Amino acid sequence: MTLMDDMHKFGHEQVLFSYDAVTGCRAIIAIHDTTLGPALGGCRVIDYADQSKALKDALLLSRGMTYKAAVAGLPLGGGKAVVMGDVNRLRSRAFFHAFGRFVNSFAGRYITSVDMNTRYEDLRWMSEVSPYVSGLVYSAEQGGVSYATAVGVYYGLKAALKDRLSCDSFAGLRVAVQGVGSVGASLCEFLHEDGAQLVVADINNERLETMVKKYGASVVDTDAIHAHDVDVYAPCARGGILNDQTIPEMKAKIVGGAANNQLEDPDRHGALLAERGILYAPDYVINAGGLMHASYGLDGASHSDLMVKVKGIEATLDDIFSQSKKEGVLPHLISYAIGKKHILEAKKHTQPFSQAYKPPFKK
Amino acid sequence: MTLMDDMHKFGHEQVLFSYDAVTGCRAIIAIHDTTLGPALGGCRVIDYADQSKALKDALLLSRGMTYKAAVAGLPLGGGKAVVMGDVNRLRSRAFFHAFGRFVNSFAGRYITSVDMNTRYEDLRWMSEVSPYVSGLVYSAEQGGVSYATAVGVYYGLKAALKDRLSCDSFAGLRVAVQGVGSVGASLCEFLHEDGAQLVVADINNERLETMVKKYGASVVDTDAIHAHDVDVYAPCARGGILNDQTIPEMKAKIVGGAANNQLEDPDRHGALLAERGILYAPDYVINAGGLMHASYGLDGASHSDLMVKVKGIEATLDDIFSQSKKEGVLPHLISYAIGKKHILEAKKHTQPFSQAYKPPFKK
Repeated sequence: MTLMDDMHKFGHEQVLFSYDAVTGCRAIIAIHDTTLGPALGGCRVIDYADQSKALKDALLLSRGMTYKAAVAGLPLGGGKAVVMGDVNRLRSRAFFHAFGRFVNSFAGRYITSVDMNTRYEDLRWMSEVSPYVSGLVYSAEQGGVSYATAVGVYYGLKAALKDRLSCDSFAGLRVAVQGVGSVGASLCEFLHEDGAQLVVADINNERLETMVKKYGASVVDTDAIHAHDVDVYAPCARGGILNDQTIPEMKAKIVGGAANNQLEDPDRHGALLAERGILYAPDYVINAGGLMHASYGLDGASHSDLMVKVKGIEATLDDIFSQSKKEGVLPHLISYAIGKKHILEAKKHTQPFSQAYKPPFKK
Repeated sequence: MTLMDDMHKFGHEQVLFSYDAVTGCRAIIAIHDTTLGPALGGCRVIDYADQSKALKDALLLSRGMTYKAAVAGLPLGGGKAVVMGDVNRLRSRAFFHAFGRFVNSFAGRYITSVDMNTRYEDLRWMSEVSPYVSGLVYSAEQGGVSYATAVGVYYGLKAALKDRLSCDSFAGLRVAVQGVGSVGASLCEFLHEDGAQLVVADINNERLETMVKKYGASVVDTDAIHAHDVDVYAPCARGGILNDQTIPEMKAKIVGGAANNQLEDPDRHGALLAERGILYAPDYVINAGGLMHASYGLDGASHSDLMVKVKGIEATLDDIFSQSKKEGVLPHLISYAIGKKHILEAKKHTQPFSQAYKPPFKK
């Protein structure tokens, strides 16, 4: 399979390889589909074992962003940037300036934001050279992108509770949260306030201690948390954790969390969850709060408008779960079809390769 | 070798893969170096056996354009576009509109033009959606890009005559012109007017007959012309024709022509030519008339300004040949060093990834 074959198969519009000789910044930016708007997707910095792994990440994640935006009803397309290398060795203002110039070369067809191993400070550096950076506003005071993601996951899980357990509160329910970084920790806060008993796992002991102290959480091993006896399993760390090994061991009745690409093989493992009676809240639907937050800095809406939109993930999932029951089609396939329908509808009136974000002022 | 490795090795800034699902337009645009200005380079459409061949073409040709522009003293960087597929099957207005949109996605950092299997009509189609198309002006009345290339080759060969044969006219000299398409045919005209005896080869019999009728040229086989007993050999067809097989068979004392990438392996075959006492006029120096013509539509200079610049290839090669003698370094290495020096000098004052062509009006 060559790159063009992959682009043909998955429907990607463009993949850009950039190399800055001065800082050593090497990035792949994938633009999946811009029918609904300019492609938005974060920038991650990972020391990939080889280029093909970086490319695969960019292709899969950018496609995910297309459907995430489409199902969330946002006027955005899907894109993603992967930067190859060890962020701790490479991080500098000049390095992220170079990356910002790569972003500029798409002249608004791609908008970047934070992702794995990038921080707000890195975004600010990018924004010194590029107007195509989102997620810079209200990051501190009003909680930022992680907070918005956690709010969305919490409301999304409430839709799952109604559908699978016929209740609308977490009171007395056991919830396993895998990964208590900024998103997972906020989610724990909301679940605890709603009366849930928390089980947590993380590779960082300090974070775990905070969860134990603040919310009385129990700690389990990160490789075993999926098998713990709980009602709800919320993966908020790495992708691919719903697979041949983990699904048969799961005891939860609901899976839904902030992690991207949870299903290792969507067709196979989506079906396997259903066979075991586990309701799966499609990851890109339930974790769309982050994208909503990112897009919010671009369109000038207020923070309360944003929160209404994020809480709307509950209604979106209500619809998906009820349509799933009615049509006998699994939720992740229903949500994919909803996204696809939006895009095909819009294609009728949209010039291909024409959507670009126009920043309100020139930097 | 991954693409990033190649980019690192050859100094490429960016490589963009684009795919338009509607028309099936699949293109690779390589931007080598934009220190001196926006990257200019033609668009070729070839039914490559596989993607790696297309990519290799884009990488090598875009790098060649950087040095061609730098040595010619043009405010341009190097780029190239390769479109994968059979042009006769794919050619349509919509197809080249799609390609024009790919070009637009660089927002002026890449400027396209004609190349193998693209025509002025294709350029006009591109220009309906893109302001980043060059080579559209004066194409008919004043001879166009092929005419300018031929003028440059003719004047460049005069520099070689002075250096190697101590004469400044072709009177009585035998010149072998390989390929008598639009560039080769114009070159034959100038050489004939200057008194040369012509030997020609081409795969197209009609073209050959025209040369025989108009200029009394002799016809030889295209696979044998390099070995013909002539004073000057002018390759104006495909690349890679100076190689282990052809160089030992050559009888000419001078090689210089319009073909790109004539040396199959620059290091090895540049040295082999010198060992045999054959003076080589570096291809990207002597054939820069085409690029000068392409850039001429962008900067608003007059046609006579252009012709002064094209004829200046003679003086440029005079300098290269005399520097080569003085320093004992081969001409193709001298010209590479001149280009490199221009770029390194400019890097001191230029922001990387910042050069973009601003069209005089919005399309």
